[in-house]
Amino acid sequence: MAKDLRGKPVGDEIKQYIKDKVEELKKDGKRPTLAIVRLGDNPDDVYYERSILKNCESLGISTHLVHKDENIQTEELLDIVSELNTDDGVSGILIFRPLPKHIDEDKVIRTVSPDKDVDSMNPISVNKLFEGDMSGFAPCTPEAAMEILRYNDIDLEGKNVAVINRSLVVGKPLAMLLLEENATVTICHSRTKDLPSITKDADIVMTALGRAKMFGKEYFNEDSIVIDIGMSEDDEGKMSGDVNYEEVKDLVKAITPVPGGVGSVTTSLLLKHVVDACK
Amino acid sequence: MAKDLRGKPVGDEIKQYIKDKVEELKKDGKRPTLAIVRLGDNPDDVYYERSILKNCESLGISTHLVHKDENIQTEELLDIVSELNTDDGVSGILIFRPLPKHIDEDKVIRTVSPDKDVDSMNPISVNKLFEGDMSGFAPCTPEAAMEILRYNDIDLEGKNVAVINRSLVVGKPLAMLLLEENATVTICHSRTKDLPSITKDADIVMTALGRAKMFGKEYFNEDSIVIDIGMSEDDEGKMSGDVNYEEVKDLVKAITPVPGGVGSVTTSLLLKHVVDACK
Repeated sequence: MAKDLRGKPVGDEIKQYIKDKVEELKKDGKRPTLAIVRLGDNPDDVYYERSILKNCESLGISTHLVHKDENIQTEELLDIVSELNTDDGVSGILIFRPLPKHIDEDKVIRTVSPDKDVDSMNPISVNKLFEGDMSGFAPCTPEAAMEILRYNDIDLEGKNVAVINRSLVVGKPLAMLLLEENATVTICHSRTKDLPSITKDADIVMTALGRAKMFGKEYFNEDSIVIDIGMSEDDEGKMSGDVNYEEVKDLVKAITPVPGGVGSVTTSLLLKHVVDACK
Repeated sequence: MAKDLRGKPVGDEIKQYIKDKVEELKKDGKRPTLAIVRLGDNPDDVYYERSILKNCESLGISTHLVHKDENIQTEELLDIVSELNTDDGVSGILIFRPLPKHIDEDKVIRTVSPDKDVDSMNPISVNKLFEGDMSGFAPCTPEAAMEILRYNDIDLEGKNVAVINRSLVVGKPLAMLLLEENATVTICHSRTKDLPSITKDADIVMTALGRAKMFGKEYFNEDSIVIDIGMSEDDEGKMSGDVNYEEVKDLVKAITPVPGGVGSVTTSLLLKHVVDACK
């Protein structure tokens, strides 16, 4: 039976860090504040916002809501972001995306100050990782995957890690974080040939393909450590990872469940970034 | 006997492209011009400059030499770069590095306009590759390695490629160029464990460790394609690649010699960038 690499204890540890940091900041008369920019009333956005507000409240982080009509023009949105950039009362900025199609999203995210880019929206933040500069905010999802490894004392030095995803949001930044820990990283993707032989050779497999239950037993062995970053609906409409958890859990050494794994750490990291951004 | 992947025919093809492009530009009344910034009289710089000047002359590229005393201050150098950035008569800028220690080299290279950054000095140029944006100038060395594969019709789709180097100048941009061609890329480095098993499993091995003749027969098999980007002196003071060419050449499928391989393509690419930058 595999070790269950659950996200909850990792998230709890991060939340404790946040609470301690909030107390510390309070002594200096500072209060971390997250600005949330939402256009229109997309139900997914509203749901996500509510969850973040609840978390912020319980952790002592203030929120500053900016709700605008979805017909807002790019220029006006850029002005809003610029104002938030210079507002000393705002520690971090979160913009719900994707933005409506008429808005130049690339321009908007590149306007977010790297110092307040807690969700790593601006490519500058990811580029820092590429340059080996760890001073910026990493994207929450790959960082959450790394946090689960760290929490479970899974050493990366000299380990072979297969990353199955090559996007700028997950795969590439994850590869950079892994290289920083001296792992040997194989970046795989949909065009990779003979993936099972690569994943079987790897000490750790980190997948974010977004194809429910695609990876069965043939991809792993008894020493495999599996970090499942995928999130998609299976045939029955249930949220599932890339890995067929039920089929694999008795074979591999350790595995993250979905839900309850990587995804449950990301929001805590977003809020950790907010307190870290508060200076 | 391995196929010899020599750089000369690749460089010759690129030079022909440059000549054709120069003729085309001439019809529009344009002349590509490379600005070369050299501080002091470091013999390596002087030697390299002479070689570039000779190449530029034979290809019809103009040069604009900026020679300054090595005691120049950062601010003055920044002014020079800014002037070159806005000078319509300058297509590309090359600054000999490393710069003297008292100069803020990072600031200087970040000042070079990406449009004229023919040597990919500014991290912005490399970051574009990370974002999957191929509109900028790639660093000449990884691009030269890619050009040798292209010239020899070595397909990369779905191939396993081991890159032995994780620097921002070679390994990381090379990995991005390979991913763009749908290769599966393993980024290895000095901390990688059991490197021979990784290189033997790869279809193509691209190494830039800078340790003369480090890789012998045990790293390859009869299907290996070896691109040797390393350049260092061996025990006898001779310029050598990372691979023990003599030991390996009868085993592998194809290999670049050193010298005469990747290194002999880089200058042609630098000058190709100059004509491509001339608009």
